[in-house]
Amino acid sequence: MNTKAYQAAVSDSSSVSTSALQAISQRFSAIRSLSLRITEPLSAEDCVIQSMPDVSPIRWHLAHTTWFFETFLLTGISDYRPFNAQYEYLFNSYYNTVGKQFPRHQRGLLSRPGLDEIIDYRLHVDAQLGHMLDEDLLDANALHILEIGLQHEQQHQELMLTDIKHVLSCNPLLPAYSPTQRQTSESHSLLGAIPLEWTECDEQIVNIGHDGNGFAFDNEGPRHRALLQKHSIATRCVTNAEFLEFVEDGGYQRPELWLSLGWDLVCREEWRSPLYWLRGNDGWQEFTLAGLQPLSAAQPVSHVSYFEADAFARWAGKRLPTEYEWEYAAQNSVQPGQRQEGVFADHLMDNGEAVQPQPQAKEEWLGNVWQWTSSDYSAYPGFEAEEGALGEYNGKFMCNQYVLRGGSCATSSTHIRTTYRNFFPPQARWQFSGIRLAD
Amino acid sequence: MNTKAYQAAVSDSSSVSTSALQAISQRFSAIRSLSLRITEPLSAEDCVIQSMPDVSPIRWHLAHTTWFFETFLLTGISDYRPFNAQYEYLFNSYYNTVGKQFPRHQRGLLSRPGLDEIIDYRLHVDAQLGHMLDEDLLDANALHILEIGLQHEQQHQELMLTDIKHVLSCNPLLPAYSPTQRQTSESHSLLGAIPLEWTECDEQIVNIGHDGNGFAFDNEGPRHRALLQKHSIATRCVTNAEFLEFVEDGGYQRPELWLSLGWDLVCREEWRSPLYWLRGNDGWQEFTLAGLQPLSAAQPVSHVSYFEADAFARWAGKRLPTEYEWEYAAQNSVQPGQRQEGVFADHLMDNGEAVQPQPQAKEEWLGNVWQWTSSDYSAYPGFEAEEGALGEYNGKFMCNQYVLRGGSCATSSTHIRTTYRNFFPPQARWQFSGIRLAD
Amino acid sequence: MNTKAYQAAVSDSSSVSTSALQAISQRFSAIRSLSLRITEPLSAEDCVIQSMPDVSPIRWHLAHTTWFFETFLLTGISDYRPFNAQYEYLFNSYYNTVGKQFPRHQRGLLSRPGLDEIIDYRLHVDAQLGHMLDEDLLDANALHILEIGLQHEQQHQELMLTDIKHVLSCNPLLPAYSPTQRQTSESHSLLGAIPLEWTECDEQIVNIGHDGNGFAFDNEGPRHRALLQKHSIATRCVTNAEFLEFVEDGGYQRPELWLSLGWDLVCREEWRSPLYWLRGNDGWQEFTLAGLQPLSAAQPVSHVSYFEADAFARWAGKRLPTEYEWEYAAQNSVQPGQRQEGVFADHLMDNGEAVQPQPQAKEEWLGNVWQWTSSDYSAYPGFEAEEGALGEYNGKFMCNQYVLRGGSCATSSTHIRTTYRNFFPPQARWQFSGIRLAD
Amino acid sequence: MNTKAYQAAVSDSSSVSTSALQAISQRFSAIRSLSLRITEPLSAEDCVIQSMPDVSPIRWHLAHTTWFFETFLLTGISDYRPFNAQYEYLFNSYYNTVGKQFPRHQRGLLSRPGLDEIIDYRLHVDAQLGHMLDEDLLDANALHILEIGLQHEQQHQELMLTDIKHVLSCNPLLPAYSPTQRQTSESHSLLGAIPLEWTECDEQIVNIGHDGNGFAFDNEGPRHRALLQKHSIATRCVTNAEFLEFVEDGGYQRPELWLSLGWDLVCREEWRSPLYWLRGNDGWQEFTLAGLQPLSAAQPVSHVSYFEADAFARWAGKRLPTEYEWEYAAQNSVQPGQRQEGVFADHLMDNGEAVQPQPQAKEEWLGNVWQWTSSDYSAYPGFEAEEGALGEYNGKFMCNQYVLRGGSCATSSTHIRTTYRNFFPPQARWQFSGIRLAD
Repeated sequence: MNTKAYQAAVSDSSSVSTSALQAISQRFSAIRSLSLRITEPLSAEDCVIQSMPDVSPIRWHLAHTTWFFETFLLTGISDYRPFNAQYEYLFNSYYNTVGKQFPRHQRGLLSRPGLDEIIDYRLHVDAQLGHMLDEDLLDANALHILEIGLQHEQQHQELMLTDIKHVLSCNPLLPAYSPTQRQTSESHSLLGAIPLEWTECDEQIVNIGHDGNGFAFDNEGPRHRALLQKHSIATRCVTNAEFLEFVEDGGYQRPELWLSLGWDLVCREEWRSPLYWLRGNDGWQEFTLAGLQPLSAAQPVSHVSYFEADAFARWAGKRLPTEYEWEYAAQNSVQPGQRQEGVFADHLMDNGEAVQPQPQAKEEWLGNVWQWTSSDYSAYPGFEAEEGALGEYNGKFMCNQYVLRGGSCATSSTHIRTTYRNFFPPQARWQFSGIRLAD
Repeated sequence: MNTKAYQAAVSDSSSVSTSALQAISQRFSAIRSLSLRITEPLSAEDCVIQSMPDVSPIRWHLAHTTWFFETFLLTGISDYRPFNAQYEYLFNSYYNTVGKQFPRHQRGLLSRPGLDEIIDYRLHVDAQLGHMLDEDLLDANALHILEIGLQHEQQHQELMLTDIKHVLSCNPLLPAYSPTQRQTSESHSLLGAIPLEWTECDEQIVNIGHDGNGFAFDNEGPRHRALLQKHSIATRCVTNAEFLEFVEDGGYQRPELWLSLGWDLVCREEWRSPLYWLRGNDGWQEFTLAGLQPLSAAQPVSHVSYFEADAFARWAGKRLPTEYEWEYAAQNSVQPGQRQEGVFADHLMDNGEAVQPQPQAKEEWLGNVWQWTSSDYSAYPGFEAEEGALGEYNGKFMCNQYVLRGGSCATSSTHIRTTYRNFFPPQARWQFSGIRLAD
Repeated sequence: MNTKAYQAAVSDSSSVSTSALQAISQRFSAIRSLSLRITEPLSAEDCVIQSMPDVSPIRWHLAHTTWFFETFLLTGISDYRPFNAQYEYLFNSYYNTVGKQFPRHQRGLLSRPGLDEIIDYRLHVDAQLGHMLDEDLLDANALHILEIGLQHEQQHQELMLTDIKHVLSCNPLLPAYSPTQRQTSESHSLLGAIPLEWTECDEQIVNIGHDGNGFAFDNEGPRHRALLQKHSIATRCVTNAEFLEFVEDGGYQRPELWLSLGWDLVCREEWRSPLYWLRGNDGWQEFTLAGLQPLSAAQPVSHVSYFEADAFARWAGKRLPTEYEWEYAAQNSVQPGQRQEGVFADHLMDNGEAVQPQPQAKEEWLGNVWQWTSSDYSAYPGFEAEEGALGEYNGKFMCNQYVLRGGSCATSSTHIRTTYRNFFPPQARWQFSGIRLAD
Repeated sequence: MNTKAYQAAVSDSSSVSTSALQAISQRFSAIRSLSLRITEPLSAEDCVIQSMPDVSPIRWHLAHTTWFFETFLLTGISDYRPFNAQYEYLFNSYYNTVGKQFPRHQRGLLSRPGLDEIIDYRLHVDAQLGHMLDEDLLDANALHILEIGLQHEQQHQELMLTDIKHVLSCNPLLPAYSPTQRQTSESHSLLGAIPLEWTECDEQIVNIGHDGNGFAFDNEGPRHRALLQKHSIATRCVTNAEFLEFVEDGGYQRPELWLSLGWDLVCREEWRSPLYWLRGNDGWQEFTLAGLQPLSAAQPVSHVSYFEADAFARWAGKRLPTEYEWEYAAQNSVQPGQRQEGVFADHLMDNGEAVQPQPQAKEEWLGNVWQWTSSDYSAYPGFEAEEGALGEYNGKFMCNQYVLRGGSCATSSTHIRTTYRNFFPPQARWQFSGIRLAD
């Protein structure tokens, strides 16, 4: 739900019901604690490193998500005493409206505040917000911001997992994030992937975008009519086995398969496979959060850039779907409001399994791997950003990025929906990003 | 017309008529000689410099356009003797299918072959092609390639003008490209710009893309149905006077007006105005091909990046049009097939006027300044690239670029049409690129 | 003592005496434990960061010094079991003879092994060496290498202090390394600096370099005759107050005072004062290991580059001494073999004082601040590097570096001598480097 | 002769004699015209390019040498009308005392003024100075500056030759600077190189530096006493054949032979041979000013950096001489004041021979190739820079450079002497720089 729809919905009733408040309170508590669970297998040292500018230290994620609640809900309250006045500057990511920011690429230069102090900071803010929830001191707008803060924290939880994976991959020791997690549950590994099939769709006008029931980010709306061309779309994602064919067919050596910018990158960075693949003496392996593993043929390929996704599609004689084609197909397959089954971070962690894609044993649209679309990330017709500083959340990034859909094994099941628009620059590949084909 | 349509059209008739051949021959001769006319005011030294990676030396343009004809029409003919076998490598721009290329950013390191030798190269290739045209030795496919070669040379003529402007602007002497050209014709300067008005359009399905009558690049097709949202679009472009208001209102100091990547660039490059504006003691001036001139209030603003166009639109409470909105509006205003009136390079040069935008005294869609659209440069549904090496012409650049429409004062009147899709990265501003607003 | 002299000395006696062995054993234990004492005030997070390529993480210093003993004394012993076989690669600094090295500028990317594991590594190697010392299993050559290892560790102890100072200075919180240490002892602060006087010296032939009594690095020899010009040299170093005059006289704005490379750097990096000076509302402050402090007028200036030292000397109408002039003057003032009084890291830490320069209340040649000389770092006539991998210790760095003499407040008193040659590139200023003038 | 000695000498006599003036006038005319002779084989395009920051366009050299005379002799004369007031800025190289400078690395961005206009500029200044020489209007100080200007122009003539060689080498066509010049005179090529012998020298005190008879740059003085160690020095330079042995012995693959900074460079730049060597199908070739030539075994190796010279010496079990050792040996072999026989630019050009090293058929100290010494470029004891802006000529570059002695085939015979100190950074290799060994 975007701001306006949400406010309308809430202000219809004179107050939020007690049971709704309890639900919010539980959700707040559950999401906040998941961040600490993600941190648990890590040492204090692990939480310091910024292995590339795109990556942030784990400690920074823990602090910044807290800063978000503090800045947008607590600062300005007359009797609120900030935990540390300098954090406003240190942990602001990109909100020019709030103030200057410590330079992003220097986040790895900070050893203080340490992990313990940042956990204290979290407790300080949680206590304050818990009190306000208990005492029903948050109005509708504040509850809306609280919800954005929780969604925001869920986004950072995914980044924590992909960032620490990148950090650990830079270490020649190739340490596991959590060696005790099971790599693949039996239920998944035994089944293998379903055959690749195609769903056809005729030209038609469809409704795209969020309908206002439940939370949504501003960039998911407004819902609007769009014309789809006749096309077909795959029922599952490309597997490691299929991508390996591309690799072995010289896919990374043939310029005619690549966008020009992609080919420059392949040459300059000497890309020869997806990000975490390693060719060993005994064949291909993949670095995972559970350490180095043999490459799983049936798993969907992940950690590919838009350039690789696009080149693979051209090699296969297909193309990537538009985000509208993807959303329409997903709408027809996913029941909104139902609990999502599938491969999600929260489920995997609850089961003691490593956060890693799993073979798609049935048609699946949400979870497992993000799917690159051919759509650049731009505003829907009539788009209006959130008001105030939160308007910087999405809109200002609508340039030179491509939309990914569907969520991944590092996404929480309560965070994703068919209208959700993720976005990354075409060269990014440290996310669990994969490929679904269209024709 | 894309390749397939063109070939179909030509092969309907068993041969091209004599008068058609004469017309092609005249057109070939006229376009080839315009490149030399553009070079005429320049010294041999002017033709060497590559002032930034995007710019190519004038000599390189003269050679590369010739290489294009040689490579795609002459090489492979049994008795054709290449002018210099090493030119294949030296003057290949980006055709991997043809072979390796001398690195683009090093084009300014070549002093040989000199200007005279390159003109000899042109004469060599022109003589050969003239002979083949006279003797009717070119089949339909060859004539199609010849036409692409001419369109290609017209594109480079525009680049020659914008590149030499950039080269000269790097010299503290600020020399004029041609001090003898009149800066502005009286007919233009006296009229001023028309008032800014808006053309409204309801939601509707329209046809977008080239219909196959006459030449078109592959990226202009296929023609397809698209849904326009209700909107309105301006009848003329933003003027220097209007853009100056933005500058003076702190437009370049307010992050909330900018896309995030644009703001980074504004800070890093210390942008404070469009590319060639200079603030002197007596007010704003603009570097033009006729040297430094007082800023003309009524001229459309040019040499702005996509970032500046987008920020201006946000400041004005408007937005940039999509390329579909632009094309639909232009179709309703421009009669296809008619000689284009307006501000074009060939007309200006025939009149002895400097190549420079002119005040828009009437509703104009073609010529004067390119207009940034909000559309990223991507394939139309069902797009198929030209076959062979010429397939590298357009498709592989469909990433991180934005579409500009309409042509400019540096475009030839015989080169532009309403379906024409130009494209540049969002930071580019050395083209005559301006702003048309939508709402 | 260089290798050959040392080996000769040791092999004269059939074995090292028991008391000598005990002394070595105590010295080994004392030096190894000082590294841990330096680490003690730091968090695990502090020990991860590499704030610039010149800096290494504290954990890396702890491991590399241990690697040195392991590689040169334990590896190759038949029954030695390495702590971790991959450490050979991870903690090799620059010994090509030993093998490949993990890239220096990426040392900050490693979170594992963690601090605890590295301390275990230290204990593992210490136990092994302790056993060998106890059992008298080290021959003369091994004892020589052990001594180099200890001297090497003392060098890294100085770097640990200067590196962590740099790391902490990058944090806007400006945290103190150890807030509990006293900033300045009373005995020092009350006295102030002695007046600046000059020691004269006529032209003469002198002996320069180490005479072979006691340990010396290879680069300190061979001792040789050299011709000194007539000159004079200052009895103390330049103070902060004196350097402040230079700053306030526009020293950083006047190109005529600077070497050309230095002036480029001043402009590019916008240097306006020594590295850790900060101009606050209440005057100049200096970031120290005890946190931000008011600038002490009487302390010798430190954290200046060769460029700043040279520019200051030119501004003062003087010059920097040659390393030969420095060594000759120091020889006449310092009694070799005596316990060094003065401002040294070990003494300061024993006294609970912060590692920070102190006013020079008497003529002092060793301790407090390193003194830039005008001599480039090059081989003495007849120089021979150590044999084997240890030959890479010094000689290969003899290019584009300048010699510093005398040791600093971060040097151990048992590590320094008048023949000691330290060296850094002319732009380096994160060491405690100061200025002594000559004329 | 440094400034002070020169002024003293001139002011002894109340005026310069008529015959001396005529000699100066002829010398002025000869040197100025040589710059144009060097330019003669070049096209206007050749004179534009700056192929790396160290290189300047030929047109820039022609203008800057003229600017030198104009700035230091004509500007300030009441009735002098500058050719173009903006040239003061455009053609100032590095004299901060004179004013701001157009950025060095952007010299290749200037196409105007063109070659013809710069030649007019030369004629304008030459006419003015010719008039002043004819009318005896230059006082002793002005004549001293005139002499510096001529020496300065001779330095730039050498740079013109080495810079255009670099420019042409960047072109895959590998064009010759002058294909009509003979590559090697018979007299040279038939003889081959003399055997490598060694001149021994005992420890002794010698006089180093210029004695004040005739012109010298400030950095050659003051003459002073220095102590030489016992040593020996080679009678000729290292040949291509000898250097090829180093190459084929894996010299560029063995880190133990290299200074650390040199090894970094070898790896980063993938150096495998001297700068202009190319390995073809038929063996090694060398790019020369006469185009690509088979590598001459007997010629002295040239275009090696200090790093390569030092690595070769280490491989050969020798070392580079100090500049004092070199000067003392050369003094004993060269008669001062005599016309220099040997391989010099002016002689070669007079003979129609290409500027290229020749086999050393006899003991030679001047000409052919510059010889790297192990001495960093620093001030002699008691050094005083020229007064005023000319004080920026030498002194401010005394950092991170090494001294080369002896001149090269690109030096004029009237420019060189045994006390002459040339200097370049250790990585530079586009000069005719070679190797003489010492032991």
